[in-house]
Amino acid sequence: MEHYQARLDGVFQALADPTRRAVLGRLGKGPASISDLAKPFDMALPSFMKHIRLLEESGWISTAKQGRVRTCAIEKKQFAAVESWLSEQRAIWEARTDRLEKFVLSEEKPE
Amino acid sequence: MEHYQARLDGVFQALADPTRRAVLGRLGKGPASISDLAKPFDMALPSFMKHIRLLEESGWISTAKQGRVRTCAIEKKQFAAVESWLSEQRAIWEARTDRLEKFVLSEEKPE
Repeated sequence: MEHYQARLDGVFQALADPTRRAVLGRLGKGPASISDLAKPFDMALPSFMKHIRLLEESGWISTAKQGRVRTCAIEKKQFAAVESWLSEQRAIWEARTDRLEKFVLSEEKPE
Repeated sequence: MEHYQARLDGVFQALADPTRRAVLGRLGKGPASISDLAKPFDMALPSFMKHIRLLEESGWISTAKQGRVRTCAIEKKQFAAVESWLSEQRAIWEARTDRLEKFVLSEEKPE
């Protein structure tokens, strides 16, 4: 459970930045080299690499080096982590709605 | 668009912490006072209040004071922001899958 929570911290932290979200959006279209990924951003390469490393450490992307080119690919399983957190929240609200409904129905019953 | 991106930064930043996620989980069951929300956490009140303020600033919760008690309620619309970001990503992959499928089908055609 603690491991799951720590993983979620990283998963959401990675999403809290427009550059990192844009990189994930780009990688959704297919793998890309770091230099191609960096092109649309007006950012020094070391700064861009920090975003890449954070995405890799949080499990959102995997990278592989072939010759002098490092290619990044998206790890879609992390989206499942976000979705599973959302479903947990929905389950909580639905349980609440069920309780409210039961309460209203019980109040409506004639004595 | 920039406003949407800045809002998403805050939305995901708020989720990148186990205390804040636990508070949202608790508020999914219904509104609660800050002192009730703080109880399960082994944390000084000022530290806990930082989490509450961050949740409020990022739009995840609303708070209202009545007498000496401040009550917090969840803002479910923020979940819709997360869901809409997820759908955007899914649309990107599906477009990719469609292109791959068309490519494979065109390759399969006899010359």
